[in-house]
Amino acid sequence: MLRLTSPGYGRFVQAQSFEVNYGGAEANVAAALAVWGEESFFVSKVPAHEIGQAVVNTLRSMGVNTNFVLRGGERLGTYYVERGADIRSSKVIYDRKNSAFSLSEAEEYDWEKIFAGADWFHLTGITPALGQESEHLAAAACREAKKRGIPVSLDVNYRSKLWGADRAKGALEKLLADTDVCIVNENQAQELFGVSGERAMQEFAEKYSLRYVAFTYRRTEDALHNRIWSTLYSDGKTVKSCEYRMEMIDRIGGGDAFAAGLVYAIGHGFELQKAVNFAEAASCLKHSVPGDVCFCSLEEVLSVADGKTLGRVSR
Amino acid sequence: MLRLTSPGYGRFVQAQSFEVNYGGAEANVAAALAVWGEESFFVSKVPAHEIGQAVVNTLRSMGVNTNFVLRGGERLGTYYVERGADIRSSKVIYDRKNSAFSLSEAEEYDWEKIFAGADWFHLTGITPALGQESEHLAAAACREAKKRGIPVSLDVNYRSKLWGADRAKGALEKLLADTDVCIVNENQAQELFGVSGERAMQEFAEKYSLRYVAFTYRRTEDALHNRIWSTLYSDGKTVKSCEYRMEMIDRIGGGDAFAAGLVYAIGHGFELQKAVNFAEAASCLKHSVPGDVCFCSLEEVLSVADGKTLGRVSR
Amino acid sequence: MLRLTSPGYGRFVQAQSFEVNYGGAEANVAAALAVWGEESFFVSKVPAHEIGQAVVNTLRSMGVNTNFVLRGGERLGTYYVERGADIRSSKVIYDRKNSAFSLSEAEEYDWEKIFAGADWFHLTGITPALGQESEHLAAAACREAKKRGIPVSLDVNYRSKLWGADRAKGALEKLLADTDVCIVNENQAQELFGVSGERAMQEFAEKYSLRYVAFTYRRTEDALHNRIWSTLYSDGKTVKSCEYRMEMIDRIGGGDAFAAGLVYAIGHGFELQKAVNFAEAASCLKHSVPGDVCFCSLEEVLSVADGKTLGRVSR
Amino acid sequence: MLRLTSPGYGRFVQAQSFEVNYGGAEANVAAALAVWGEESFFVSKVPAHEIGQAVVNTLRSMGVNTNFVLRGGERLGTYYVERGADIRSSKVIYDRKNSAFSLSEAEEYDWEKIFAGADWFHLTGITPALGQESEHLAAAACREAKKRGIPVSLDVNYRSKLWGADRAKGALEKLLADTDVCIVNENQAQELFGVSGERAMQEFAEKYSLRYVAFTYRRTEDALHNRIWSTLYSDGKTVKSCEYRMEMIDRIGGGDAFAAGLVYAIGHGFELQKAVNFAEAASCLKHSVPGDVCFCSLEEVLSVADGKTLGRVSR
Amino acid sequence: MLRLTSPGYGRFVQAQSFEVNYGGAEANVAAALAVWGEESFFVSKVPAHEIGQAVVNTLRSMGVNTNFVLRGGERLGTYYVERGADIRSSKVIYDRKNSAFSLSEAEEYDWEKIFAGADWFHLTGITPALGQESEHLAAAACREAKKRGIPVSLDVNYRSKLWGADRAKGALEKLLADTDVCIVNENQAQELFGVSGERAMQEFAEKYSLRYVAFTYRRTEDALHNRIWSTLYSDGKTVKSCEYRMEMIDRIGGGDAFAAGLVYAIGHGFELQKAVNFAEAASCLKHSVPGDVCFCSLEEVLSVADGKTLGRVSR
Amino acid sequence: MLRLTSPGYGRFVQAQSFEVNYGGAEANVAAALAVWGEESFFVSKVPAHEIGQAVVNTLRSMGVNTNFVLRGGERLGTYYVERGADIRSSKVIYDRKNSAFSLSEAEEYDWEKIFAGADWFHLTGITPALGQESEHLAAAACREAKKRGIPVSLDVNYRSKLWGADRAKGALEKLLADTDVCIVNENQAQELFGVSGERAMQEFAEKYSLRYVAFTYRRTEDALHNRIWSTLYSDGKTVKSCEYRMEMIDRIGGGDAFAAGLVYAIGHGFELQKAVNFAEAASCLKHSVPGDVCFCSLEEVLSVADGKTLGRVSR
Repeated sequence: MLRLTSPGYGRFVQAQSFEVNYGGAEANVAAALAVWGEESFFVSKVPAHEIGQAVVNTLRSMGVNTNFVLRGGERLGTYYVERGADIRSSKVIYDRKNSAFSLSEAEEYDWEKIFAGADWFHLTGITPALGQESEHLAAAACREAKKRGIPVSLDVNYRSKLWGADRAKGALEKLLADTDVCIVNENQAQELFGVSGERAMQEFAEKYSLRYVAFTYRRTEDALHNRIWSTLYSDGKTVKSCEYRMEMIDRIGGGDAFAAGLVYAIGHGFELQKAVNFAEAASCLKHSVPGDVCFCSLEEVLSVADGKTLGRVSR
Repeated sequence: MLRLTSPGYGRFVQAQSFEVNYGGAEANVAAALAVWGEESFFVSKVPAHEIGQAVVNTLRSMGVNTNFVLRGGERLGTYYVERGADIRSSKVIYDRKNSAFSLSEAEEYDWEKIFAGADWFHLTGITPALGQESEHLAAAACREAKKRGIPVSLDVNYRSKLWGADRAKGALEKLLADTDVCIVNENQAQELFGVSGERAMQEFAEKYSLRYVAFTYRRTEDALHNRIWSTLYSDGKTVKSCEYRMEMIDRIGGGDAFAAGLVYAIGHGFELQKAVNFAEAASCLKHSVPGDVCFCSLEEVLSVADGKTLGRVSR
Repeated sequence: MLRLTSPGYGRFVQAQSFEVNYGGAEANVAAALAVWGEESFFVSKVPAHEIGQAVVNTLRSMGVNTNFVLRGGERLGTYYVERGADIRSSKVIYDRKNSAFSLSEAEEYDWEKIFAGADWFHLTGITPALGQESEHLAAAACREAKKRGIPVSLDVNYRSKLWGADRAKGALEKLLADTDVCIVNENQAQELFGVSGERAMQEFAEKYSLRYVAFTYRRTEDALHNRIWSTLYSDGKTVKSCEYRMEMIDRIGGGDAFAAGLVYAIGHGFELQKAVNFAEAASCLKHSVPGDVCFCSLEEVLSVADGKTLGRVSR
Repeated sequence: MLRLTSPGYGRFVQAQSFEVNYGGAEANVAAALAVWGEESFFVSKVPAHEIGQAVVNTLRSMGVNTNFVLRGGERLGTYYVERGADIRSSKVIYDRKNSAFSLSEAEEYDWEKIFAGADWFHLTGITPALGQESEHLAAAACREAKKRGIPVSLDVNYRSKLWGADRAKGALEKLLADTDVCIVNENQAQELFGVSGERAMQEFAEKYSLRYVAFTYRRTEDALHNRIWSTLYSDGKTVKSCEYRMEMIDRIGGGDAFAAGLVYAIGHGFELQKAVNFAEAASCLKHSVPGDVCFCSLEEVLSVADGKTLGRVSR
Repeated sequence: MLRLTSPGYGRFVQAQSFEVNYGGAEANVAAALAVWGEESFFVSKVPAHEIGQAVVNTLRSMGVNTNFVLRGGERLGTYYVERGADIRSSKVIYDRKNSAFSLSEAEEYDWEKIFAGADWFHLTGITPALGQESEHLAAAACREAKKRGIPVSLDVNYRSKLWGADRAKGALEKLLADTDVCIVNENQAQELFGVSGERAMQEFAEKYSLRYVAFTYRRTEDALHNRIWSTLYSDGKTVKSCEYRMEMIDRIGGGDAFAAGLVYAIGHGFELQKAVNFAEAASCLKHSVPGDVCFCSLEEVLSVADGKTLGRVSR
Repeated sequence: MLRLTSPGYGRFVQAQSFEVNYGGAEANVAAALAVWGEESFFVSKVPAHEIGQAVVNTLRSMGVNTNFVLRGGERLGTYYVERGADIRSSKVIYDRKNSAFSLSEAEEYDWEKIFAGADWFHLTGITPALGQESEHLAAAACREAKKRGIPVSLDVNYRSKLWGADRAKGALEKLLADTDVCIVNENQAQELFGVSGERAMQEFAEKYSLRYVAFTYRRTEDALHNRIWSTLYSDGKTVKSCEYRMEMIDRIGGGDAFAAGLVYAIGHGFELQKAVNFAEAASCLKHSVPGDVCFCSLEEVLSVADGKTLGRVSR
């Protein structure tokens, strides 16, 4: 997607220019993993024009392999962002109907090649929310991954503006059947699945046969200050991450950084407490970086996860 | 429409920000007329969000009355502009399908109020090209104007990417039946109506019972240097404007400035030669101003039309 | 007035460019009311050149009617703003002597037309402070409003750099004789009128036969953090607004937003507590927006006034 | 003076920021001479605030000695510049009435110290045009220089917006009585002194007992393309400089660079042809540099004056 | 290399910021080829810090494979660029001594892997000029390519500031022994090899057993206007390209675009005339794009090479 | 040195431009003193090109005398700065090896002229750390100052990336033998000299025969919030400054502002408590100003030192 952001803390109607970022939930996860040295691939479809090419260039610059990005369709999904400040909320206006990706069909993708050699597949709940085709596509992709024994992670990322809770629940439950790792924030866990609190995690994991369940928490003090933490469940055990009170530079992509961190941590066999700390540190660091992507090195994330970093000058 | 332009002479893929302009063919005409002191109204539909509001604010800042701009629909038509330089052409990427305006229907507009007290109606050929609804809307608007005896001007503005020549010809001929003043560039006159050259102007005027016909001409030397001129026919007489060789700052809106100039000139009863000179001067001046709108005062246009201005410092 | 601001937190001597804003105390009030959907008019005088025109365009963009803005005189009042940070104070340098407005005389304005259909008149104490002509002008305007039964609000806005306390008190007392609603901050209430604290409000209201008296309070923690609240008295009752601790983006115009909020609230018949909350919420929100004007929608102000907003992302 | 310029080729009403430059006719001459390694002093008065300080800092950065810049008064003269393009003229709006300098009086300056060790004094016709005080000041300064045997150069720089031709002629003739070197453009020579063409130079020089007379010529092709040349008379001989056709980046200060070049050339005893070539080269180069000052090294000016430079990359 | 450019046409001493580009002669060739769809690799060494990483990211964004970019050493070569205008020349200040690449040794590179599957090797004369290590490295690379039968192209790119003509000639002749395609501009052909004019091309080709020889020509009108053309010799035949008179946006990288074009054309078996036209079109187009790289699509280059493009708006 | 800073809170790899500042530890001290009205000289060496000239211009603009800045050598020391935010640390990458200054030798400087009329000499521990020549130079300068009875202040400023603790200790002890005033932060006092805490100050002063010893303290809350304070010892007495909790705009130069403040305070005979308060206030204020230099007036520093300023708007 193309993200167009008002400069500084200006309102939409005051903007004489928009800052340009290319990203999206899954793209941000792929990018963070690439920045940390993982070989990551982004699978999507963008229009065969220069704005579409800009998406590809942006991902490539971060080291993401874009060989499986199809070209075609008419438009790139777009959204407008206005930064809030103090008591004034940030605003997001979406304009992503009829995007090339949302209209792409499962048959256009060569799953054989895409999953050859893959050892992880990550998906967010935004994809199936984009429309009928996308819902099929998401289901097909999970199924294809599952049947090859590739672990699947799903970040629920429920957006009520895109679909209703009922349709969402139905579609997501189908995906959960093929999922190994599920991330969901506390409100959505409650709204969609009727579960809340640490105790419910085990129940939720068992109901959907999940190996890992992460619940994420966010408390808003004002537009620029949030507190975040998370809990991670696996195999009968639940751990809680560090809690961070953040002065945020850019909130977009904070959840994707968590997802990327969790995929990295599980993929590298981190033990449970270290895994959740790593994911939360990645999320926290992302909030300090402009743009959608957690442009922080592995060393930086590990240092924060280990509690060693407090914002000193490094020279 | 929202126009997003790459900064300077950078290419789309190099842009980290886009310059923001709100405009569109008819809006640019209304704006120029307001800048010249006319009371002008813009009739359209924009989404009921802040990006839609920005269109309204922009038009109001120039003095255009926006009381007849409807609010609703889902998105604002968008296009991307990359400035060319030297032998490298400028590029435009359109993303305007399903815009609030293109899906608006004739019935949504209160023609009685809109045309109460109006003494001119201007339309471009882009509107009917946007889709079935817009074609109906354009026809309805012309008919409503006509039946109230309000003069109608039509800038053909044929865009082959939007519709084919056959469909365009059919739709435009219907509009021409209600039109008094028609503006068309030489290539489109040839392609759509099979006429070319000064002699054909009378024939064209008679065929469609037009009071005024303007043919516009443009020769491209390179991306930043064009030559332009025009001819104007009325009542058996044809005149040719001055010819300008321009070093262009911003080409978008050059044709709209011509249309605004012609509407102004005819509306104020300028004699034929002065009318075409005024319109061409407005067009030439527009090319020297960034953005879509001919932000030049009446005095400036008159001074250029009279051949008195050569780019001296005014202090 | 033209406001020229150093970029970011740079000092005046570091600036290679200035940000441009057009505003002023009364203009900011008119603008906020227009943003909230009120029909508002700005009455003033600006030079008949493009910098003067820019004032008009800016106000029109926000929906303010500028039909009563006279053109003429030599210059636009100007001021320079440098944002402070932490312990370093913000700085303002004024250069507004001999502005077109400050030299305009009461006779230049067509009070009959201006007040035809008007249902409110707002004035600040800056206007009479600008000089002899302005003092007459302010008095004349209040008198003309009063004699037509139009409610008058006066924001005291005492600036010691412009006039002494004695001259100010004399002039303001004359205005208060025609005033219905008076806004004054605690320090100026003390310095000019010798009143302080909630109890003095009734006394103050009675002395000058005011329907409403608002006292505003501000505590400075550092250049970017202030606490604000206010009290409102009417008809024997005094209420206190919410108190906000703010991280400020732009402090200029915070008081004008309060005034606009109060005018709106009283004009719409809000009960006392809701009125002061609405005004304070408008003021608080203004501090989060760059520029002079409270570019926040009615919904946003109401949401903050109702305590429902805490700076969440709205998407 | 403070110069506020609209960004790029945008019009005043489009500007959301202004570029900031500090300069002025005499300041630009002092700055160019300092850049070329001369010890130069600027004598003026600026307000005792940060905007005044910025003038001092700017001059110091270029190596101009500011020890004789007085502090006081209320405001700095200001002007607004809008760059033209193609057939659209550049625009300048002045706001310099009541500047600290224009109200400063001859008695405030310590001529003894100022002229101790000085070997040149340069003045432009703008100074006496600023008002009664400035006219006295200019005359006093010339007289003080003259009586110490210090050569005086006067750049006529007649601005009809500031004073009428009659008053100007009277005042300038008084200054010419103390002047050794006079620079005047062809139009002003005609309008003020009724002389034109090369032949009149000798007559003009003899009438006012001038050692050197320079006539400058400018032909405008469009807002960005001018041709310039000059003639220089001394001691019975007249020479013509090279003629340059320029694509201009910034026209302001082009005449001041010529004056600086002439002062440098005469001061260093260049023979007549070399002197006028050097001055014209400096002027031409200035037009290629943004801002008011000829930020070009001695080597660059000499290289252009010698016809050795054609805009190659120097690497 | 890191290129730091003064904004607009400002001089170095006026810059408060520098534009950032990462490029270099060979990198620019690799990038252009990648933009045209070729698989291209960049072989170099950059410091193991974020500025080094930025080089990698920039190349990746354009599609260049950076697997053979070594990490280490202390610094990245840097240069400063100031754009000229009109008669004022552009300026380049180099600061590239002791760069990581210039101190890297042939043994650090894994030639086996680098050349596995390669079908072309391109080198410029800047590399051996950087110092003793680089001279060895260049020779080693050419030898390794040659012994695997991989065609080698050498762009002479002689920089007299880096080494003397004698040392350059000696080193380059060694490289020419392994070279198939040599590009040299007319002046350097004369200065280093004593050849000039079309007739000498065959002689030059035979002397060094070259399959292709290209001579490039540039005539400077002023800092922003150049004329360029080239001649290409192969197998007894010499052809001349189109000649372009350009208004340049950015001159850096114009020669590299020519080299890339020639490599592409020869690699794709273009016949001689088409080959030189393609290379010259690429070079011409590069001059219209900001930055070092020919960010123009294959279609655009072909269209210009075929004489079909004249800078029209493409919409 | 040239400082290149990523815009806003962007990371190095995201920067398309760098902000430009010229400064350095000793330069910042000289600049602050000049801003406060002292006559200050900067002694150094910069390359004889425009980037070197920009250093001179920058210092001159602030009023620093640059007559003793030598021209020559090859490069200017450079460093890259990335602002941290929240838990993400700021980053500095140095590239200053082989700078003109670091290779300059004591014999190049004319100590007789440099110290004629001087009444203070300030040096930081960065200078001797730059290499063998710089170590000699630092020692020579201190010796030359000492033998003329000029007070010497040394800011230890130990940078472990430049030299080891052992070499540093040896070199610094030699300098301390000629030093009157020593500033060192608590960690370096411990690491290099094995002293810590207030009590050790007297011991340290006596060991090296220092008239004044200042220990500085900094606690990091996060990248933008620090607490700072200091202690000052002289003649048997130790005082502690105010403690400031800061929201920082730019941390670079905070220590230099302390040093400048201490030099000013001691030079003007402030009593001990006032001296340390003044120095700490200068340091605190510097953190609120972008760039390296404490661009705050004497009045501002005094006002903060006296506890009178809390970031109010001054208008």
